[in-house]
Amino acid sequence: MPRTIAFLLFDGAEELDFAGPWEVFTMVNELRPGEARCYTAAETPAPVTCAKGLRVLPDCTFTEAPPADLVIIPGGIGTRRERDNPALRAVIERLRAGGAALASVCTGALVLERMGLLDGRRAITHRVGIPILNKNPQITVIESARYLDEGDIVTAAGVSAGIDMALYLVRRFWGPGLADEVRQAMEYYPEPWEAAPSSDAAARRSSP
Amino acid sequence: MPRTIAFLLFDGAEELDFAGPWEVFTMVNELRPGEARCYTAAETPAPVTCAKGLRVLPDCTFTEAPPADLVIIPGGIGTRRERDNPALRAVIERLRAGGAALASVCTGALVLERMGLLDGRRAITHRVGIPILNKNPQITVIESARYLDEGDIVTAAGVSAGIDMALYLVRRFWGPGLADEVRQAMEYYPEPWEAAPSSDAAARRSSP
Repeated sequence: MPRTIAFLLFDGAEELDFAGPWEVFTMVNELRPGEARCYTAAETPAPVTCAKGLRVLPDCTFTEAPPADLVIIPGGIGTRRERDNPALRAVIERLRAGGAALASVCTGALVLERMGLLDGRRAITHRVGIPILNKNPQITVIESARYLDEGDIVTAAGVSAGIDMALYLVRRFWGPGLADEVRQAMEYYPEPWEAAPSSDAAARRSSP
Repeated sequence: MPRTIAFLLFDGAEELDFAGPWEVFTMVNELRPGEARCYTAAETPAPVTCAKGLRVLPDCTFTEAPPADLVIIPGGIGTRRERDNPALRAVIERLRAGGAALASVCTGALVLERMGLLDGRRAITHRVGIPILNKNPQITVIESARYLDEGDIVTAAGVSAGIDMALYLVRRFWGPGLADEVRQAMEYYPEPWEAAPSSDAAARRSSP
């Protein structure tokens, strides 16, 4: 079933927070043309300057944003300002009223928190946002979670967790077979994490 | 030691190929201000339309691109055209002559191959590019590698492998301690890969 995914951008949005899920969902559309229509939206048509300086031109403005099945809300330092931006809140409320599920990555959860949308739910965010969510007694913060699916609201941990959340949502929307195809197309077989590997270990990994 | 990292963009560059390493190296600069200066460059000042439709405004043109210590060459469908683009080859040659190491992600390796820079070396690329590299008997393709460090030339496998390669290069340039800090700031602790997990397994992973 074709789905539309809206990526909401703003100055100070963290690059990988949206670029990771963007890669996942646009890969769905490459593998199954027409199945996942992805667009970026921002408050104005001007270029967005992301948290680390990448400049992105949005496809449309918040007021032009077409109905969506899923809305990706990235984190980044800009969320501290954007959580009180009526234009961002309005587009989230409008798309949600039209049936969209909301999915935050990283400190994007702070926007949902300020809107009251995490009250009575489990949630996760980047480690820097956890003390903020913990101040709200209505939220059950699950610090060990990579992402949490509460049905119409999904939250992910920091930055790269958006990739895992997006792959999970591909499983939820289209099934595990397509999620595996996307993972293979992205060659997403990350190295296992090792704390402070020696340079010998690094050299070994770069060898066959 | 401060280093400059150039990200070369072109129409049809795969989004995560550059956005992953961009996140890694700009995070170095957030953790150690001034240590990693990152910029994007394209042939013209016009917005670049990436492989999956994201539109990015480059910081400078290829001819304006300042000297760099490392050049990131993303893959994507655009490489099939760009590997014969004299403007892209010229900026790579100029930065390399100035001492930059070259690092390809995904089918970015096809650009290096066409320039003859992989001759006599081990290399890896996205699975779709492997038959192309294999046609060149001067190249030793290591199909099992996530990335390969040949000193002045580094190649990575497809798309998300750029993140692992970039974290490796942070270890190489600045040491494992900073690479760990970057990984923690990105919360890059990916889920282990499982082929076609059941929906039960997915639900378990989204629970604490």
